[in-house]
Amino acid sequence: MPLPIAAASGGDLAAVLLDLFVILLAAKLGDELFKRIGQPAIVGEILAGVIIGPSVLGLVEPDTVFEVFAELGVVFLLFWVGLETRLSDMRAVGSSAALVGGLGVVLPFGGGIALGFALGDGSAEAIFLGVALVATSVGITSAVLIELGVLQSRAARTILGAAVIDDVLAMLLLAVATGLADGGSLDVGSLLVVLAISIAFIAFFAIGGTRLLASRPRLLHAPRFSESPLMPAVILCLGLAAFSAAVGLAAIIGAFLAGMIVAETKEQHPIEEEVAPLYAFFPPFFFAFIGAELDLGALADGGALALLAGLTALAVATKYVGARLGARSLEPRERHVVALGMVPRGEVGIIVAGIGATAGVVTGERFAVIVAMSVATTLIAPPLLRRALRS
Amino acid sequence: MPLPIAAASGGDLAAVLLDLFVILLAAKLGDELFKRIGQPAIVGEILAGVIIGPSVLGLVEPDTVFEVFAELGVVFLLFWVGLETRLSDMRAVGSSAALVGGLGVVLPFGGGIALGFALGDGSAEAIFLGVALVATSVGITSAVLIELGVLQSRAARTILGAAVIDDVLAMLLLAVATGLADGGSLDVGSLLVVLAISIAFIAFFAIGGTRLLASRPRLLHAPRFSESPLMPAVILCLGLAAFSAAVGLAAIIGAFLAGMIVAETKEQHPIEEEVAPLYAFFPPFFFAFIGAELDLGALADGGALALLAGLTALAVATKYVGARLGARSLEPRERHVVALGMVPRGEVGIIVAGIGATAGVVTGERFAVIVAMSVATTLIAPPLLRRALRS
Repeated sequence: MPLPIAAASGGDLAAVLLDLFVILLAAKLGDELFKRIGQPAIVGEILAGVIIGPSVLGLVEPDTVFEVFAELGVVFLLFWVGLETRLSDMRAVGSSAALVGGLGVVLPFGGGIALGFALGDGSAEAIFLGVALVATSVGITSAVLIELGVLQSRAARTILGAAVIDDVLAMLLLAVATGLADGGSLDVGSLLVVLAISIAFIAFFAIGGTRLLASRPRLLHAPRFSESPLMPAVILCLGLAAFSAAVGLAAIIGAFLAGMIVAETKEQHPIEEEVAPLYAFFPPFFFAFIGAELDLGALADGGALALLAGLTALAVATKYVGARLGARSLEPRERHVVALGMVPRGEVGIIVAGIGATAGVVTGERFAVIVAMSVATTLIAPPLLRRALRS
Repeated sequence: MPLPIAAASGGDLAAVLLDLFVILLAAKLGDELFKRIGQPAIVGEILAGVIIGPSVLGLVEPDTVFEVFAELGVVFLLFWVGLETRLSDMRAVGSSAALVGGLGVVLPFGGGIALGFALGDGSAEAIFLGVALVATSVGITSAVLIELGVLQSRAARTILGAAVIDDVLAMLLLAVATGLADGGSLDVGSLLVVLAISIAFIAFFAIGGTRLLASRPRLLHAPRFSESPLMPAVILCLGLAAFSAAVGLAAIIGAFLAGMIVAETKEQHPIEEEVAPLYAFFPPFFFAFIGAELDLGALADGGALALLAGLTALAVATKYVGARLGARSLEPRERHVVALGMVPRGEVGIIVAGIGATAGVVTGERFAVIVAMSVATTLIAPPLLRRALRS
């Protein structure tokens, strides 16, 4: 009784069901089309989001429910990646990953600030532009790596490790930038506390969690509510994602850690098979959401387009060069793959733009440009990555 | 970056993730506990919703996101039921189901109106009380039937068929009651149009859809985006649910039809295995939501409790007797099972109460009482049903 439900809730569940149907159908059609022309499926899903979103057809809005499904999409995406990852693999690429993550943050940050000053920004505005260029959307790259079946490669491990470091640094820079934008003084002590909590959280679950489940795999399938080990694993994923978010990190870091922990029991249970339907269902909302955030109307003038071109070129170049320098201990071809894999800004650039807009340091046109830059880097990298990995 | 996402969206995705985690964990713990004491798992999940909801701990609110997950829960639940159902099975129980559905509507409706007048209600109020007693929540009974592995029995088929008829009748009665409550005159012509569309929708998809997929099962797995037949099937489910809702029927009728249609290709693909994770993930939100809607505080006086006891007794007795009379062509034991299976009002009673409140004919205390009656019938039936089926 949806008519009634609508009336009862004040919302409109029938309309929500229709939105979810339209988004999923459009994303899968985009996926299908791009697979047929030999391009990465996620690019098709993002473009489907652009088309059904406010920019073109206006069938769906990037509203709260869509956003929640998008968030669960990237959470289950990184959970899946975690399931394919062993802590020992991550350790093996530790130093490269740290360098890739670090240099891949420093160069874009510096480049963004420099561009901001060149454009005549005040320091708060310029710093926010730097922060908007910093963080990599590992969800995008992960999806391409999964599609091409190379998640187990050394380059993929390096990208994942670098993304974790990248996220911690981006969180700190964002905290600094937000503090400055609010006109408040910078509280270095509390920043250090946040940093310590983040590192402790990651280390505790990465090391402690994997050890615990490796020694007691039955913990996962002891409950009777699980005819399968799926539900305890999914609950762990949501719990660590929420906890990670509460600490101030990306929810996806918690999801990734949960996946790594559960992976320790893989010999006992083919958990990937069971998670696959959730992985097929939720992530399309994530990709379509990124596309739906794009505001083509706001880009319809020469100045905005020139800024977009410049900002995108800067975002690609600084991240590529920084990450490639960081990956210098790898083979040349791996360096190229790692550097390309760090390029997509995806949802993270969009989020930073939103925070900047709230803080009043990212104005209307620039907001649309940063969002468009995030989408552009997200569309550019996957085909190049695909070609590099197939060559 | 959840802190940022929260700031960017104005909402709080970190808090949403935490809510989803708490709900899923609590529901599965309730499930676990009730399985261990030999009771139906869904009763444990509903009680978990009561405990984490506003009535007791106040950890979660029945807000929009929770409601959407609950709706998808019952949609995937009925999709699952549809997957286990053949159109030919439904035809075989057609006449019994029609009688069960019809008499199971007439008696509670009449009983509710009579009680309303006895309480001194005006006619609009009394009719609404009647409507609130009408509709069965087939989701609740289905979950018990699935848990006990008897979804293929003749009694289960009769319940499912009766539930479809029950929903069509309930929709019409609700339209009439809402029209009267708004003080408008009753537009019989448009009601007949709605009825015709509903019947045409059900017949078209039940007969046409199943024939189409029976003759061309490849339709479901032709797209490349589906490494599996799951996603086209899920998209069909969401589409028919939304369409069904747009017509004015319950979304779950569309989901049930989608399941029946997809079931025609079952020989080719073990689709149940693939849907199982979605079935494990979403329905707990539905059961917990029903519990979270309960407002124990509003029942804390003698008059409310007496009304609740009387209304619940009336709801159980009229539905049981009506359905049992309708099932007179079945074996005595089957009659008992069918009649018990129609008793739970679940979400439907709650929805009607909400609409009545909006229309101003269900006042504060009575709203809480109708919701509590819905929950009470939903908690009473499963243990009795379990005992009847096990005896």
